[in-house]
Amino acid sequence: MSAPSTGTAVRVPFTELQNLLQAILQRHGCSETVAQVLAHNCASAQRDGAHSHGVFRIPGYVSTLASGWVDGQARPKVSDVAAGYVSVDAAGGFAQPALAAARELLVAKARNAGIAVLAIHNSHHFAALWPDVEPFAEEGLVALSVVNSMTCVVPHGARKPLFGTNPIAFAAPCAEHDPIVFDMATSAMAHGDVQIAARAGQQLPEGMGVDANGQPTTDPKAILEGGALLPFGGHKGSALSMMVELLAAALTGGHFSWEFDWSSHPGAKTPWTGQLIIVIDPSKAEGERFAQRSRELVEQMQAVGLTRMPGERRYREREVAEEEGVALTEQELQGLKALVA
Amino acid sequence: MSAPSTGTAVRVPFTELQNLLQAILQRHGCSETVAQVLAHNCASAQRDGAHSHGVFRIPGYVSTLASGWVDGQARPKVSDVAAGYVSVDAAGGFAQPALAAARELLVAKARNAGIAVLAIHNSHHFAALWPDVEPFAEEGLVALSVVNSMTCVVPHGARKPLFGTNPIAFAAPCAEHDPIVFDMATSAMAHGDVQIAARAGQQLPEGMGVDANGQPTTDPKAILEGGALLPFGGHKGSALSMMVELLAAALTGGHFSWEFDWSSHPGAKTPWTGQLIIVIDPSKAEGERFAQRSRELVEQMQAVGLTRMPGERRYREREVAEEEGVALTEQELQGLKALVA
Repeated sequence: MSAPSTGTAVRVPFTELQNLLQAILQRHGCSETVAQVLAHNCASAQRDGAHSHGVFRIPGYVSTLASGWVDGQARPKVSDVAAGYVSVDAAGGFAQPALAAARELLVAKARNAGIAVLAIHNSHHFAALWPDVEPFAEEGLVALSVVNSMTCVVPHGARKPLFGTNPIAFAAPCAEHDPIVFDMATSAMAHGDVQIAARAGQQLPEGMGVDANGQPTTDPKAILEGGALLPFGGHKGSALSMMVELLAAALTGGHFSWEFDWSSHPGAKTPWTGQLIIVIDPSKAEGERFAQRSRELVEQMQAVGLTRMPGERRYREREVAEEEGVALTEQELQGLKALVA
Repeated sequence: MSAPSTGTAVRVPFTELQNLLQAILQRHGCSETVAQVLAHNCASAQRDGAHSHGVFRIPGYVSTLASGWVDGQARPKVSDVAAGYVSVDAAGGFAQPALAAARELLVAKARNAGIAVLAIHNSHHFAALWPDVEPFAEEGLVALSVVNSMTCVVPHGARKPLFGTNPIAFAAPCAEHDPIVFDMATSAMAHGDVQIAARAGQQLPEGMGVDANGQPTTDPKAILEGGALLPFGGHKGSALSMMVELLAAALTGGHFSWEFDWSSHPGAKTPWTGQLIIVIDPSKAEGERFAQRSRELVEQMQAVGLTRMPGERRYREREVAEEEGVALTEQELQGLKALVA
């Protein structure tokens, strides 16, 4: 999620970075609406130190748009299915604008029915998952999301890769505290972090993946070039990854991680799958008490010696960025500027 | 979940075992309704080879009932909260009768709203979690449940135990196939399996737990006597365990795993917490197609070399038990009979 970049560091105000990213995305084929949503998402990841989903991703967005694999102009079609069910056809575009288009309806349903689900299909997700759930917690709601991706993980007990890195993200409000948020790949490591390690020439810890022959390896390049990742936590992480395929693809009507074929679109990087988001309104049963209880949990976790809550590193990086600007390398900044030249 | 028992094996018809367990539970303080639900649950676990939640648990039920810690006569109070939200006060009784009392309303809401949540609090859960979700999949629904338990797991990065074993269970229908069901402790090992290993004098694999001094140990007795379990999969399993505390306790109004004090009830074994169940109707968006897609997933998992699907061992044991009766040891059977003498 957050391996540091190398090179001379510069600091750029958040809005300036977001505007630059939006200009790049519009220049390379996104509509203003889509570019705005993706630029905010990507700039937020960079701001929070989640570098594997920050500006590192921009060349991938650009090459994918150029390949014709994703529709940067797509207009999501929102369907009001039932009292607790919203479905969106992302129309071959990105998942985040689809969420943005359905969000108001989803929240209204969750507040009314107590729980609601958003099923997005025909969508591309190439970003971190926590930016999709954190805003729900900021308005007092509990959110859980899953998205499947592209075949690169060997199910526990199998011989060949099948699942995607298939992350699970969760967010809950917490009284007088940042929301409790986590976003975890169900693979032993996130794909972006393997790419970052490969680029930096670093070895990985043991147990992350296998090479093209199915043998354990600590070489990120061997994982990326014909090898595969393993699930985290053995058969349990593998079962969770399977659940993500069922919820994000089978339930939404999206593709499984192995079902799309981008071979005729060189440069395509964005998995064409589905995403599920479940939102619960805790005030239905527990009123304002939920956030207080959540706060008690945090205090107890600190009392047994936990020094950092899930998501806390992002909040600390965010604080610094709000004061000093978003950190990236001079090389990255020049690379971005070249993309709008 | 399923360490084998030792001793001479006998086979008992399912209904005979269920009736025996029901008689024991009624004899020791359960109402007929409560005894029926728990006996079916426990006999099902034994039938399916899930021995750590089979008849192995009966002495714990009996000693807990004798201690006055749980109300075996409790009548759950069901509240119809909103279009997708049902809440149950289990009234200090077991969680399974609370689920049984609310189940029809929950299913009706899920079929109408597309998704519904059941929040149970003031409840005791001492059983496997898969029997709570599998029946939803049998009627074409997708179900996810979490229950918190009692402090015995050290959060990743902490020094002392706080969380319970906090399992997550999931069930989904699958065309022409048994439902896809898993039930996993978010601890490295289920508590019942540690007890079984201790009883059998077996050592555990590395990474399961720590002793009373917080040092890694493979001795199950050291874990049970002042030590603690670790989460599965490091910080990821730990984050999931935290999520279970938030969903099963904070959201429902139940106790966190560290909040109840049974010290004045010697013999009490059942955690007094909460449980959350989310049920989704896949026909809302995908019609009959979901079960077909689920089936495609199974076929793909088999194609990459998976020889056993999650839950499959239980189905195979069940088939044998339906032919030959439920397996238990002669010693276990005599022990059970002694409890109604």
